[in-house]
Amino acid sequence: MYGLIAKLTAVPNKREELIKILEEGTKNMPGCRSYILAKDAADENVVWVTEIWDRAESHDASLSLATVKDSVARAKPLIAGFEKVAVTNPVGGVGFPSAS
Amino acid sequence: MYGLIAKLTAVPNKREELIKILEEGTKNMPGCRSYILAKDAADENVVWVTEIWDRAESHDASLSLATVKDSVARAKPLIAGFEKVAVTNPVGGVGFPSAS
Repeated sequence: MYGLIAKLTAVPNKREELIKILEEGTKNMPGCRSYILAKDAADENVVWVTEIWDRAESHDASLSLATVKDSVARAKPLIAGFEKVAVTNPVGGVGFPSAS
Repeated sequence: MYGLIAKLTAVPNKREELIKILEEGTKNMPGCRSYILAKDAADENVVWVTEIWDRAESHDASLSLATVKDSVARAKPLIAGFEKVAVTNPVGGVGFPSAS
C-alpha cells in the first residue's frame, strides 16, 4: 500500500473550516483506505493528514476528481503552509485496512 | 480522541524485525482504535507509527500492559532513534474509527 503523512498549517482561526472542507471533499476517493484528519495538540493552526491508499496511482488519480479539485480550490486560501512529512508503505497494525 | 505520530529509526537491517515485534506486541491494547505501522519510502531504516486512542489515559495505561512491556524490551535494542513528531486530536475522515 501507499501512504502519506502531511502537515498543514491553516491561516489563523481557519483550522476548523479547513478540516470541514477536507473532510467533505475526500469522502469518495477510489482506492483510498484511510484519510484521517487530526488537530495538532500543541499548535492551534496545524492539521495532520495521514493517508492510506491501495497504491500510489489511486492517490494521483484522486487529484483529478471533481470533488477533490473543488475541495482543493476552497481549501487553498485557508492554508498558510504545507509540508509532506513522509511518503510511506503502510504494512500493518491495529485498524490496518484490509486489501480490496 | 487522542493521537500520536512517531518516527522510529531502526538499527541498520533491523526494520523488518522491529515492525514484527511492534505489530505483535500491540494487538490487544484497550482503548486503541488504530496503530498503523508504515515503512518510510525513502529511508530504509525508518518506521512511522500513527496511533488513535479513545483518550490519552488509555495510551498511558497501555505502557503498563505485560505484552507491551515485553514488546518494548525486545524492540529497544533494534531502535536507533525515536522522535515523537506530533501529539494530536484526531477528528474525522475516511476510516475514522467510531467511538466505542
